Amino acid sequence: MVYIFVLLALLSSTSDAAVNDFCVADLKGPDSPSGYQCKPPKSVTVDDFVFSGFVAGNTTNIFRAALTSAVVTDFPGVNGLGVSAARIDIEKGGSVPMHTHSGATELLIMVKGQITAGFMTPFAVYTKTLKPGDVMVFPQGQLHFQVNSGKRKATAFLAFSSANPGVQLLDLILFGNDLPSALIAETTFLEVGQVKKVKGRFGGRG
Amino acid sequence: MVYIFVLLALLSSTSDAAVNDFCVADLKGPDSPSGYQCKPPKSVTVDDFVFSGFVAGNTTNIFRAALTSAVVTDFPGVNGLGVSAARIDIEKGGSVPMHTHSGATELLIMVKGQITAGFMTPFAVYTKTLKPGDVMVFPQGQLHFQVNSGKRKATAFLAFSSANPGVQLLDLILFGNDLPSALIAETTFLEVGQVKKVKGRFGGRG
Amino acid sequence: MVYIFVLLALLSSTSDAAVNDFCVADLKGPDSPSGYQCKPPKSVTVDDFVFSGFVAGNTTNIFRAALTSAVVTDFPGVNGLGVSAARIDIEKGGSVPMHTHSGATELLIMVKGQITAGFMTPFAVYTKTLKPGDVMVFPQGQLHFQVNSGKRKATAFLAFSSANPGVQLLDLILFGNDLPSALIAETTFLEVGQVKKVKGRFGGRG
Amino acid sequence: MVYIFVLLALLSSTSDAAVNDFCVADLKGPDSPSGYQCKPPKSVTVDDFVFSGFVAGNTTNIFRAALTSAVVTDFPGVNGLGVSAARIDIEKGGSVPMHTHSGATELLIMVKGQITAGFMTPFAVYTKTLKPGDVMVFPQGQLHFQVNSGKRKATAFLAFSSANPGVQLLDLILFGNDLPSALIAETTFLEVGQVKKVKGRFGGRG
Amino acid sequence: MVYIFVLLALLSSTSDAAVNDFCVADLKGPDSPSGYQCKPPKSVTVDDFVFSGFVAGNTTNIFRAALTSAVVTDFPGVNGLGVSAARIDIEKGGSVPMHTHSGATELLIMVKGQITAGFMTPFAVYTKTLKPGDVMVFPQGQLHFQVNSGKRKATAFLAFSSANPGVQLLDLILFGNDLPSALIAETTFLEVGQVKKVKGRFGGRG
Amino acid sequence: MVYIFVLLALLSSTSDAAVNDFCVADLKGPDSPSGYQCKPPKSVTVDDFVFSGFVAGNTTNIFRAALTSAVVTDFPGVNGLGVSAARIDIEKGGSVPMHTHSGATELLIMVKGQITAGFMTPFAVYTKTLKPGDVMVFPQGQLHFQVNSGKRKATAFLAFSSANPGVQLLDLILFGNDLPSALIAETTFLEVGQVKKVKGRFGGRG
Repeated sequence: MVYIFVLLALLSSTSDAAVNDFCVADLKGPDSPSGYQCKPPKSVTVDDFVFSGFVAGNTTNIFRAALTSAVVTDFPGVNGLGVSAARIDIEKGGSVPMHTHSGATELLIMVKGQITAGFMTPFAVYTKTLKPGDVMVFPQGQLHFQVNSGKRKATAFLAFSSANPGVQLLDLILFGNDLPSALIAETTFLEVGQVKKVKGRFGGRG
Repeated sequence: MVYIFVLLALLSSTSDAAVNDFCVADLKGPDSPSGYQCKPPKSVTVDDFVFSGFVAGNTTNIFRAALTSAVVTDFPGVNGLGVSAARIDIEKGGSVPMHTHSGATELLIMVKGQITAGFMTPFAVYTKTLKPGDVMVFPQGQLHFQVNSGKRKATAFLAFSSANPGVQLLDLILFGNDLPSALIAETTFLEVGQVKKVKGRFGGRG
Repeated sequence: MVYIFVLLALLSSTSDAAVNDFCVADLKGPDSPSGYQCKPPKSVTVDDFVFSGFVAGNTTNIFRAALTSAVVTDFPGVNGLGVSAARIDIEKGGSVPMHTHSGATELLIMVKGQITAGFMTPFAVYTKTLKPGDVMVFPQGQLHFQVNSGKRKATAFLAFSSANPGVQLLDLILFGNDLPSALIAETTFLEVGQVKKVKGRFGGRG
Repeated sequence: MVYIFVLLALLSSTSDAAVNDFCVADLKGPDSPSGYQCKPPKSVTVDDFVFSGFVAGNTTNIFRAALTSAVVTDFPGVNGLGVSAARIDIEKGGSVPMHTHSGATELLIMVKGQITAGFMTPFAVYTKTLKPGDVMVFPQGQLHFQVNSGKRKATAFLAFSSANPGVQLLDLILFGNDLPSALIAETTFLEVGQVKKVKGRFGGRG
Repeated sequence: MVYIFVLLALLSSTSDAAVNDFCVADLKGPDSPSGYQCKPPKSVTVDDFVFSGFVAGNTTNIFRAALTSAVVTDFPGVNGLGVSAARIDIEKGGSVPMHTHSGATELLIMVKGQITAGFMTPFAVYTKTLKPGDVMVFPQGQLHFQVNSGKRKATAFLAFSSANPGVQLLDLILFGNDLPSALIAETTFLEVGQVKKVKGRFGGRG
Repeated sequence: MVYIFVLLALLSSTSDAAVNDFCVADLKGPDSPSGYQCKPPKSVTVDDFVFSGFVAGNTTNIFRAALTSAVVTDFPGVNGLGVSAARIDIEKGGSVPMHTHSGATELLIMVKGQITAGFMTPFAVYTKTLKPGDVMVFPQGQLHFQVNSGKRKATAFLAFSSANPGVQLLDLILFGNDLPSALIAETTFLEVGQVKKVKGRFGGRG
């Protein structure tokens, strides 16, 4: 005989919503400051909590690197839970260039190869050459980079303190749009010629 | 003569929303990680802030106990406010079995009778026999229990640090569904026979 | 034979702190925006999680009411957990006057007697006469009151969405200190004579 | 040639939402405990982040003061960002009377003239006469006031720790609605006659 | 010539603390609800942000599994940043048994081998057999497990949404201490004999 | 006669700490993830809540600009309250160059003159020429700038969504320390010669 009184009691005057312990994103609905709206619990399946494309991306690009994300828009089960992941694959000689995540700390777990990574303050530089067995944290909002300093391809997994960490690649932010080169030069102390040159590589105009 | 300048000034370029100091749940709309959407302030009445069914539930069940909840799905006024309540009534010999709340601390206020309650770590057991005049707190995420250790019916009020604390009854989680008995045994170190037996009582299959 | 590998593994390179799932307040140390420092886990006992003085206070005062608190400074186990409690006992004809909690929502659970309670906005009044079986919530920061509107003593339990909710009794804030009466009058639109009169009752000067 | 691999990689399995680093309010949609839903990033313009009406309001009222707000309902770019602003202009002899913000701290920056401002506890009064070059903070939930104590018009800018701080003007809360005068008197220790008188000024009935 | 005006200006009336963008834990000091106190920025080195012992642990135990943590007590740089990591190595036939993290969501990244993992509600079971390339999330507070369902050793990395996620192994919580067997039986619906038997394996008494 | 029962009742079993509604920083003590420890309430004075140096700084520098901060290390009353301020003064032809605040949104209130300000994503540029009466918000973690685009000195007040917003001036982060020029070039796609040149201006070596 089945007795599930407590739960039934709990449910007696409530909807199913009272007992859902997660909020799987309804990615078709609007986002909000706390994340996406929840899918109805009854339509949730285990596949909402699993992401199966966490594999190496294509590294035939200027950076000789690839980033594969596993964030809320990739698998909706992390919605509202304050964590997500990514993997980076960097060919010999490649790098993940200077970038920040506006709302998340990044934690890097070395898997293969060798990466030199770091972040900086005006007073100090925190860089380290990392090998498998190493973990490094890049505190929220700090500009940081990862360079393959080894002799073969390197792979690392990243964890973020947000379900939707975003990414601000410095080159794309500065040089990938049509902010006037003179204004960029004025506010970075780079020379206008240099700005225009890098803009050429990242698709910026002006 | 009426002067409500400051407020009117505040409202001059805004909607009514600017001055609502609460967010009563629209329970017909979707949930989100921060709670339900707000009802339009104009449709809010005092009854959204009051729950009137906070009475003893039916205790004629295997636990000889009843739980009556006053959470966001019971009265929408607590939406987004980080607090809710419940009452438990336990007959002589009954108990609220091992359970957790995934996102809330529980605070128990004794009203009548005697309850022995507690939670455990691998290093220590925190149990106490409680009588009216006693309050006990069960920190977030800790497995805990309440047993009527007195000679008559016991009643207690519970407060939670969430508008929607959820409840994970260990027996229902482990034995109330169709997770294979062998898998449960493997991951709990219980014997398969025992698992099947308890499953029988809680409706589980497999 | 005992096997506690996972935990030991977890502990292998760490202090005991890694496995404490609570932060019992060290009330002798300093407070911080997130609460008190944690007592060393080894010195924690079940009595840190239990408060045993949750009984009626003395109501022989101008309000004919008493408030008994169970907040972090009363029992340190609630530190950092976002919940605490209080009980109010109000004699016939008495009241808990207008007040706010600067950082907490209040949830009231009726125990005995009859209380008329409420809070107000410039656009609406939310008042209700409550009896045992009723629960009412007063959203964070709202000025609210409780009046015994019955024929005998009333008792209610309060839950707060903070371990240290504070209390701002309007009369004490306005009339219990030495803020000049003229300034109070100017900023409340009360008459100076009235201000001085009420100040007399609440110990204010000026 | 343009290479935006990292971002494209990030986007490969996601919607645009993955890279929005802000959540501009869709003010036509519902509010939630964490703020409004986000507008689609593609429809966001710089004007969502700019508010251009931050000018002196009309001070020909009983308070001889005006408040101009720049909160989420005025410019949707602050949605979910935990900050907003207002400006106050107070004529000689005027004041912003006693008020609180239920969910926000207020920080005042003096611009012009002289203001005497303060907040109180039962134990202490914190008041100061402020001039340009001064900044003062009024902690969340504290009843506070600002009086023009100078010889000409005074102006100050306010910053709030919330995108939607609300405002509870004590006079409007107590005297601007139809809460019965006897009940107000009972819960404030003011005299009924005084209550009725002030009610007359703020539009209250009863 | 060096010009660092803005920063110097910022620092002119402040201590160094104003510009630290992280809070590396002083593990010798007390913990608090928000984490450990910060080390003085000047004593921080890159090694505070790097953990170098993220390697396979010893799996010669009853579970045939090992857990290696990289949490705040292992490397203090994650203090206050809401993220940490662990790795699990499970031999063929082994498992990480039923457990919860009281204050953190767990995200599992498969590295090697095959793991069947899951969590349950009373209404549904969410289990999946995971291989390299798969990521799975276990929402905060949910009881979950990982079983090596492959033919060789399996390895996975875990990320947590807290710098100090804790771990509650169900067997250790229920059977590793001296909570009386009768009380455990009463609150789990297991038989006393079974309780005593499992207690024997996990060091519990009573 | 004085009656302060409720408060006295509240205090009966507690320390003074129970009634402090703020946490003024003890700047001599350690910082924590939630802010500084609280000064004892009895030692708090109004001057802890007031900062009186909010005046124009010295603009005779490379940027022709000055920043004056009013953050927790300037006035301890904002500790834990999630808000602070700064003022910027920019001479004709000057600018506040590209920078971010790792943990805070910035809200700019124009006071005098004309400023062209903005922030960028890879997809869009959000820039605006601002005059008195304008307010602009720069969402958390976004790289942004302010340029005096007028014909005379410009002044603006800034509000932050943190008591300790920090500041990351891109030039100082990239060029003000001893991170090797080749590494900077590799991770920014700037030319090494350019990197060395700007390093020369900001005191960097390598």
